Amino acid sequence: MHRDSQSILVVGSVALDDVETASGRRPECLGGSATFFGATASHFAPVHLVAVVGDDFPEAHLDALRQRGVDLEGLERVPGRTFRWRGRYSPDFTHRVTLDTQLNVFENFDPKIPERYRDLPVLFLGNIHPSLQSAVLDQVKGPRLVVADTMNFWITGAHQDLLKVLSRVDVLIINDEEARLLADEHNIYRAADHIRALGPKMLVIKRGEYGALLFHPEGRFFVPALPLRDVLDPTGAGDTFAGGFVGHLAQAGNTDFATVKQAMLHGTVMASFTVEGFSLDRLLTADAQEMAARVQALHALMSPT
Amino acid sequence: MHRDSQSILVVGSVALDDVETASGRRPECLGGSATFFGATASHFAPVHLVAVVGDDFPEAHLDALRQRGVDLEGLERVPGRTFRWRGRYSPDFTHRVTLDTQLNVFENFDPKIPERYRDLPVLFLGNIHPSLQSAVLDQVKGPRLVVADTMNFWITGAHQDLLKVLSRVDVLIINDEEARLLADEHNIYRAADHIRALGPKMLVIKRGEYGALLFHPEGRFFVPALPLRDVLDPTGAGDTFAGGFVGHLAQAGNTDFATVKQAMLHGTVMASFTVEGFSLDRLLTADAQEMAARVQALHALMSPT
Repeated sequence: MHRDSQSILVVGSVALDDVETASGRRPECLGGSATFFGATASHFAPVHLVAVVGDDFPEAHLDALRQRGVDLEGLERVPGRTFRWRGRYSPDFTHRVTLDTQLNVFENFDPKIPERYRDLPVLFLGNIHPSLQSAVLDQVKGPRLVVADTMNFWITGAHQDLLKVLSRVDVLIINDEEARLLADEHNIYRAADHIRALGPKMLVIKRGEYGALLFHPEGRFFVPALPLRDVLDPTGAGDTFAGGFVGHLAQAGNTDFATVKQAMLHGTVMASFTVEGFSLDRLLTADAQEMAARVQALHALMSPT
Repeated sequence: MHRDSQSILVVGSVALDDVETASGRRPECLGGSATFFGATASHFAPVHLVAVVGDDFPEAHLDALRQRGVDLEGLERVPGRTFRWRGRYSPDFTHRVTLDTQLNVFENFDPKIPERYRDLPVLFLGNIHPSLQSAVLDQVKGPRLVVADTMNFWITGAHQDLLKVLSRVDVLIINDEEARLLADEHNIYRAADHIRALGPKMLVIKRGEYGALLFHPEGRFFVPALPLRDVLDPTGAGDTFAGGFVGHLAQAGNTDFATVKQAMLHGTVMASFTVEGFSLDRLLTADAQEMAARVQALHALMSPT
């Protein structure tokens, strides 16, 4: 398949994170949904990124994305401070407390899709306000695959806007807490039915250290998380999963059940690197050989024979 | 293989439960670790049960076990009231509160293994005081497979006794909270290393609605839980899992990695029936055809192709 027919447009955040875990604290590190997604998806297909940063954003952080071949023409740099998030994880990583959120230049983010990005075939809508996700959908020209993320904050605070987005996406990727909230239903399988009736033909429910569930028109599939002895920082794991998932689908050029299952494996494998380091530290060192080895390890973990 | 070489001895509790969930309350219903285990394992191999009940125990409850072919010669009936447990589940089944525990005749339970049970090849030690589990091990004649369960209460309250048991068992089956407590380690894979160093060659860590992890000398294996839309009562799910797991191993006559993986599938499938009804209601209606259909459904859920 020609590379252009595999290209991905991602719209989301590029941020400066301040993360504290049992292993230590890392201030002013590279973060954001578009960042983790782009750095990951670029292993599979060309990535074009739309986001905004302030004039305080360290140029060196962008080099990390450029070295991964991510096209940053759509990254706006505006006067002011970059979006900042500060959080702390419990020692077992089961809980996360947000200590501070400064939207800064992100508060007035109004994604403008460059002309040459508008007919890209695959679109990932990172976790931004649903009305902005809709504004992006209004600017693009019928991508063959639209994948979206969202979060509790929008599910409760911008519910109607979110419903409009959901009616226009092919795949929604959320975690189980979000799925339960969105569907107002405890049982995860009933919740999935409810959510798919809102629009998405496919639904991925991430279950943290346990794995992820796929609901596809042809069936369901569960992929466990990889066994990891050294988790340093789970920040970005979900966006990394999405990057591997969407990257594989862009590369494959279809959404057959078997293909989407493989995408689940690649998302899982990529996320396993992210959580092994702060920020993008470990993800950026992952090479093709390591990736293939972890796909194999995942197959072994799941093989009933 | 001759049926005698597959026979299972189970020592545990036979109880009267009072269970409350979002679906309702069921007082004085049949419960206990040996009950759920025996009713399940009897689908795979002959089961001989050792437990104690009081003179208030309804004979009709025993008929359910007898109809499944469970040998009750080792079930003592003594003067006094039967062990009673009363609990309530949160609407999403993630939390359980014990409202009342009356040990009654179980307080002085001193398992006496009938002579003809002592050379049975497979032993399951249900969740009873570790010193009683040791007392059982002292009475039997070198079973080829010993599988044990335990709980938080003994991990903290009878730690030294539990360590003695662990040095004598082949397989330990516990949930992830118990594994973390036993190993004093958050990371479940490090916890598994620690626990296996205490004795068990194999370790199964149950993860509730997510599934279960197997640690075997030849590798690891994860089996997801079956997707269930109607969960009524999770009581007994763990003992049912153990019943399917041990039942399959007894029937197969070996503990090769591939065989133990299949045992994980059978444990998972059997547990899926138990949680769909109060007490043993749904489990007792499960037939061979339904069981085979769920094993197939589980294979499909896990198949990456």
